[in-house]
Amino acid sequence: MAGRVKEFNEFRERMDKRILETDHRAIKRFYAVDTLTYEPGALDAKAKEMLGLVASMVLRCDDCISYHIQECKKEGVTDAEMFDVFSVALTVGGSIVIPHLRRAVTFLDELNSNEGE
Amino acid sequence: MAGRVKEFNEFRERMDKRILETDHRAIKRFYAVDTLTYEPGALDAKAKEMLGLVASMVLRCDDCISYHIQECKKEGVTDAEMFDVFSVALTVGGSIVIPHLRRAVTFLDELNSNEGE
Amino acid sequence: MAGRVKEFNEFRERMDKRILETDHRAIKRFYAVDTLTYEPGALDAKAKEMLGLVASMVLRCDDCISYHIQECKKEGVTDAEMFDVFSVALTVGGSIVIPHLRRAVTFLDELNSNEGE
Amino acid sequence: MAGRVKEFNEFRERMDKRILETDHRAIKRFYAVDTLTYEPGALDAKAKEMLGLVASMVLRCDDCISYHIQECKKEGVTDAEMFDVFSVALTVGGSIVIPHLRRAVTFLDELNSNEGE
Amino acid sequence: MAGRVKEFNEFRERMDKRILETDHRAIKRFYAVDTLTYEPGALDAKAKEMLGLVASMVLRCDDCISYHIQECKKEGVTDAEMFDVFSVALTVGGSIVIPHLRRAVTFLDELNSNEGE
Amino acid sequence: MAGRVKEFNEFRERMDKRILETDHRAIKRFYAVDTLTYEPGALDAKAKEMLGLVASMVLRCDDCISYHIQECKKEGVTDAEMFDVFSVALTVGGSIVIPHLRRAVTFLDELNSNEGE
Repeated sequence: MAGRVKEFNEFRERMDKRILETDHRAIKRFYAVDTLTYEPGALDAKAKEMLGLVASMVLRCDDCISYHIQECKKEGVTDAEMFDVFSVALTVGGSIVIPHLRRAVTFLDELNSNEGE
Repeated sequence: MAGRVKEFNEFRERMDKRILETDHRAIKRFYAVDTLTYEPGALDAKAKEMLGLVASMVLRCDDCISYHIQECKKEGVTDAEMFDVFSVALTVGGSIVIPHLRRAVTFLDELNSNEGE
Repeated sequence: MAGRVKEFNEFRERMDKRILETDHRAIKRFYAVDTLTYEPGALDAKAKEMLGLVASMVLRCDDCISYHIQECKKEGVTDAEMFDVFSVALTVGGSIVIPHLRRAVTFLDELNSNEGE
Repeated sequence: MAGRVKEFNEFRERMDKRILETDHRAIKRFYAVDTLTYEPGALDAKAKEMLGLVASMVLRCDDCISYHIQECKKEGVTDAEMFDVFSVALTVGGSIVIPHLRRAVTFLDELNSNEGE
Repeated sequence: MAGRVKEFNEFRERMDKRILETDHRAIKRFYAVDTLTYEPGALDAKAKEMLGLVASMVLRCDDCISYHIQECKKEGVTDAEMFDVFSVALTVGGSIVIPHLRRAVTFLDELNSNEGE
Repeated sequence: MAGRVKEFNEFRERMDKRILETDHRAIKRFYAVDTLTYEPGALDAKAKEMLGLVASMVLRCDDCISYHIQECKKEGVTDAEMFDVFSVALTVGGSIVIPHLRRAVTFLDELNSNEGE
């Protein structure tokens, strides 16, 4: 795990730890719901992660996009499937999504290149 | 097809016809891209319609939600799978999604009840 | 409780019941977090309901606005305080908030008029 | 002025009057800024109303869209120019704009039909 | 005042000065309304700054969040109260708010650490 | 072309090339529609670029704002006209637009300063 990917994950984990240590009940339970949401149910984890990815793209949150791309890859989403998700996000969300798409592909390329190491 | 479902589809079809008859090139091509986006590719139509549904929910567009619920049912998405999609939308988009969820379930119930007729 | 206020509350309660009866774990827990969020903590319920109201206004969700206006009144928020909340929403969210402000004031007036009955 | 157009304008005017009568300083001044914004400056009123229209469409506020369509017509924007504005909104904002586009064209058609009376 | 906090405030002040020097009437008056909005009225400045903070979080604007955290601290908002505000933002706005929450807490921690100097 | 302007354009061009090379039909056609949208029609390219700019500002996408400022300048939009566009964005979109306005003016100043070289 290298470069921006590593930095992204370390910041995320450090701050989530910091936030949960405040022991704020509603915030802690929100985090628990967030985890529960992506566990396999009627849909499997792969389908759910793709749903999380497209939702993040149309809402245009780069960190959420990076996170779900990472989880999608863990669940076996191929690059071709990933671009189908990107395509739905682009059509539904419009050209305003394009800058986020550029950064998403940059992140995906970095993930793929790290795998080869 | 009865009640709100029928009214929704008739308005949609009449206005799309009206809009496309203006023969505005960029608008017509946008509509064509919109259709193309949900055709089977690396992901099948069922997966793509679920992506369209979750994107519509977090962007909180009732008509888009109704439309994709309808298309999801055509592609064989079960009610249990539909609620998994709703759940991702709710977690990603927050409680602001709840009023749209209520209307989505109302529409789904009406679709299901029309089927039984 | 009359007119639109009554209709609004009945629809909300009927559909929440319908949604929770599906027994979808993540959705049920989300609803529980939603309730927990507005319970008194470092801030009292009145302060939290005003936060919920302003958040609903800038995100422009009429049903959420109606709900929080109702809860604000239960917690003793005066009309003058309510307009201070509206003012922050208007400045932060821009003129796009105005149509929602018009409907919010309509709902508030109806609530106030029901009280006098 | 007939049907939905009339109803829309009456509600808008009645509620704006009601809101301004509270004499809330920040809200009143916001309304004044809103008016000032569309007065001719480096750009003329026609250009500014088209800007207001496209902004309302990508933010997906039906009442704001109706209002600016009406103002655009007063400033001499032709239907062909109006559809160019719609096209930019559709491309920037995505397919989520389509239901608002359908209602925008319905409103425009009603305005045009009222003129002929 | 150190690091990111200092840089943030210097950029903000320099650019606001640059923007106001253009002497654009509507922009200048918007800035005046913005200031007026947070002055004590029916609600005190502390309550209004918390409203500004939660609105900024659900609209997901990091700079606005940083600014209102800073103003909240000036008005005596405690860290426990701040997390109650964060909690409302998270529940209303959904998991898409989490990356902004992480950066908000980073900024708050930096503010608190500067105070100790 | 220097500094951030150059970096911005190089990243944009490199990633658009990378994305289009995947040969994803719906994504490629979306890009084509995006280009087509700004070609002169009932409105000229200058008017359309200003529409693209205000839409980008209220949707708060810094990269889209930078891009359209650049295109506006190519089409002969003066700084005074640009600030009229900014003003509409600020009024419609609210104070949440201000941080994007600061960065927009920074970008515009850099463009203007590069011209003088």
